[in-house]
Amino acid sequence: MKKIEFWYSIGSTYTYLSTQRLEQLEANNDVIFEWFPFSVRARMIEMENVPFMAEKKRQKIDYMWRDVQRRAKLYGFDAKTPAPYPLKEFDLANKIAILGKKEGWIKEYTKITYKKWFLEHLEPGLDPNLSDTLKELGLDRDKVLKEANSNEIEDNYLQNTEIAKNKGIFGSPTFIYENEVFWGDDRCEDAIKWSQ
Amino acid sequence: MKKIEFWYSIGSTYTYLSTQRLEQLEANNDVIFEWFPFSVRARMIEMENVPFMAEKKRQKIDYMWRDVQRRAKLYGFDAKTPAPYPLKEFDLANKIAILGKKEGWIKEYTKITYKKWFLEHLEPGLDPNLSDTLKELGLDRDKVLKEANSNEIEDNYLQNTEIAKNKGIFGSPTFIYENEVFWGDDRCEDAIKWSQ
Repeated sequence: MKKIEFWYSIGSTYTYLSTQRLEQLEANNDVIFEWFPFSVRARMIEMENVPFMAEKKRQKIDYMWRDVQRRAKLYGFDAKTPAPYPLKEFDLANKIAILGKKEGWIKEYTKITYKKWFLEHLEPGLDPNLSDTLKELGLDRDKVLKEANSNEIEDNYLQNTEIAKNKGIFGSPTFIYENEVFWGDDRCEDAIKWSQ
Repeated sequence: MKKIEFWYSIGSTYTYLSTQRLEQLEANNDVIFEWFPFSVRARMIEMENVPFMAEKKRQKIDYMWRDVQRRAKLYGFDAKTPAPYPLKEFDLANKIAILGKKEGWIKEYTKITYKKWFLEHLEPGLDPNLSDTLKELGLDRDKVLKEANSNEIEDNYLQNTEIAKNKGIFGSPTFIYENEVFWGDDRCEDAIKWSQ
């Protein structure tokens, strides 16, 4: 069983595709993915690369939404695009994932909150997506929010972002097998091949 | 036989991959590619998006070269990266391709000049790549250069770039089947699936 790191930020559009298909890939291949949330926004600001925002890039933005939708269909699930973007509560959504990793519900949380974003157009990190997702997981909303906003979780989030930088990660999702970096949902199969 | 448009600029790194494998894809699928050179640089300047140049993007540049190399190996050919970048004679290299389309040698010219760039690190549009490529094609260098620099070819080049813009193209390579746009060498198979 080969272990592949899955580095991601809730807020990245293409990451939706990976979150919905990694389990199937694990079932079909001799691999297991370990999930690592980090702040891709912090990495992009460092690189002076905040994508998809300028009006002059309108064609590229439109293309991105169309491509995400086509690829989702190709994989066998749905994506109602465009979804709300960018996320207002980007950091909170990811800090909850960090807490979820510590407590064992990171994958379910990420998958559900992404589904609500791309199927119902409800933003991660904001109600009703936030409350409904935590309810589906059987978690106490107030307790989760308090812990997600603690110094410990904030430190873990910053730490992951620093580790991501040192590993050469500049976008979400990124897959790493040993020291080999694969950027993009569309490179997930390359990472699997590399690991075999 | 489905006809897919292949829009490209000599100077784009990932385009190397497509130029070396489209014939094989034609042999294995019910598709034929029509090649259209355009100025991706003009498109990027319009979008204020000149990639891979800033020192802060060093990690991304390094990754791009590694990814091109890995993907070439995956496809069964070689890429010695990094290759010289960006090209000094970007426009001339593409205008020669425009002339080659008119005269029927565009595919061979593009494949050979790209090979010399990625295997021998000789820039397209500059000697010795330029002279050697034309010699391999049995063409008269002085005549080709004179015609490639004519108003007619310049107009065709600008026209293709304008058409590319109107089709929603913002990068090289781009594949189009009917009105569906697929950006990137890694979306070529999606375009083929779409056409079937």
